[in-house]
Amino acid sequence: MNRLQLIEQIQQKKTFLCVGLDTDITKIPKHLQHHPDAVLRFNKAIIDATKDYCVAYKINTAFYESLGLKGWEAMEQTLHYIPESHFTIADAKRGDIGNTSAQYARTFFETLPFDAVTVAPYMGEDSVRPFLEYENKFAIVLGLTSNEGSHDFQKLMVIRNTDQERYLYQTLIEKVAGWGTPDNLMFVVGATRASDLKDIRTIIPDNFLLVPGVGAQGGSLEEVAKYGMNKYCGLLVNASRAVIYASSGEGFADDAAKASMEYAEEMKGYL
Amino acid sequence: MNRLQLIEQIQQKKTFLCVGLDTDITKIPKHLQHHPDAVLRFNKAIIDATKDYCVAYKINTAFYESLGLKGWEAMEQTLHYIPESHFTIADAKRGDIGNTSAQYARTFFETLPFDAVTVAPYMGEDSVRPFLEYENKFAIVLGLTSNEGSHDFQKLMVIRNTDQERYLYQTLIEKVAGWGTPDNLMFVVGATRASDLKDIRTIIPDNFLLVPGVGAQGGSLEEVAKYGMNKYCGLLVNASRAVIYASSGEGFADDAAKASMEYAEEMKGYL
Repeated sequence: MNRLQLIEQIQQKKTFLCVGLDTDITKIPKHLQHHPDAVLRFNKAIIDATKDYCVAYKINTAFYESLGLKGWEAMEQTLHYIPESHFTIADAKRGDIGNTSAQYARTFFETLPFDAVTVAPYMGEDSVRPFLEYENKFAIVLGLTSNEGSHDFQKLMVIRNTDQERYLYQTLIEKVAGWGTPDNLMFVVGATRASDLKDIRTIIPDNFLLVPGVGAQGGSLEEVAKYGMNKYCGLLVNASRAVIYASSGEGFADDAAKASMEYAEEMKGYL
Repeated sequence: MNRLQLIEQIQQKKTFLCVGLDTDITKIPKHLQHHPDAVLRFNKAIIDATKDYCVAYKINTAFYESLGLKGWEAMEQTLHYIPESHFTIADAKRGDIGNTSAQYARTFFETLPFDAVTVAPYMGEDSVRPFLEYENKFAIVLGLTSNEGSHDFQKLMVIRNTDQERYLYQTLIEKVAGWGTPDNLMFVVGATRASDLKDIRTIIPDNFLLVPGVGAQGGSLEEVAKYGMNKYCGLLVNASRAVIYASSGEGFADDAAKASMEYAEEMKGYL
């Protein structure tokens, strides 16, 4: 899916919700846990329940890898079950030297045909470039994350050539933005301090932002929309636990539908 | 395997070589390529040929993931084929928010019982901690890498509280070192500028360093030994392409043995 098609989906459906399939086998409803295809069954039910209220699904690869071969099979099958109309993200946080990143790009753009993959930027340009070489595919590079640990390095003050001081994450976003275009590059920007979004939008007015941290991690959707939105929306706001674990009984899918619908209702007001 | 056992292996075998199994299906000898178990066959031959000259194997997960399910199976089978006497590293560069890093730790310490996994540090403390909570397992955190892109962010000048200026990678190594001990924490330190190793050793005198970039990437083993070694050796020097693709004909395993033996011979002189 390309950027224009994603924007069209957002405009048609009046939502910019991304549902995160961080499917933890120990947290899904008890009545599903012992089924041999438990993860896939759960995901299918969640996708069926939420697809009208979201434009994207984000698969957190860690939860699948930890199950070994069976997990990778469930990830593959889940990806193929997601409707063509939805943007698909491998939340894999990959990144390595060039020839290795090229293998990761192949993994998540060819072997598993996702539309986008999240990329860890610490190793610099040659670790990001291979993800930018595919047409109609996106690297979503970590900018400012929503976790406690984001303060450890992302908010260090960095000296630039011009003797100005800036946060590392600001310098990083600016530099990475020059390696791609809004057609192949997005950024992860956490929602825990939405006012940071305002500064980030001065650096990258046009790129889509993938915003985690709304819901379970405590970010405010209203602030994200206020400071992060651009004229094409430019936001994918992710909710994982708040949707997929909305309840844990037989009615889990209905409650996931309800939770995603509530996000979509609120988003409609901001669009 | 714990730190003491690794040190014993190094002392007994007089080598600190790690062989990197970055097995690219398109680069292995032609006569193996069309075998259904090509990657595993190749790896077994390489392990048999090199095990007397190295103390560790590093599996680069990207090359296996890109093959999908078959690749994960080959990775699993390769790991189980590596002798108990050898330290095993998943070169996976993982790292995410705490609950997700916990899943990655489970993947590479339980589902696939490696001794160590490489970790990308950009997301900070809660992204690294879950890898430090296993007894006799190691997080190997990216410090200074050996690729061109290491200059983009790792060598930015960072302002510390004390108004001193340091490279980001120095500040990062110092901070991460406080989260663990030499018994559960190592660092990736590239060999392309071995003199940097001298400064790094003032920050972390005791931790093991995993040093890529010797061989194909151009680093000097002599300089690495000179500046990086501590009283317990404290080094694992990795060679991947220079060993496993030493030649590409029927005699590939013999040539891999020869290449690894040459590294081991040189290492013996430095120990």
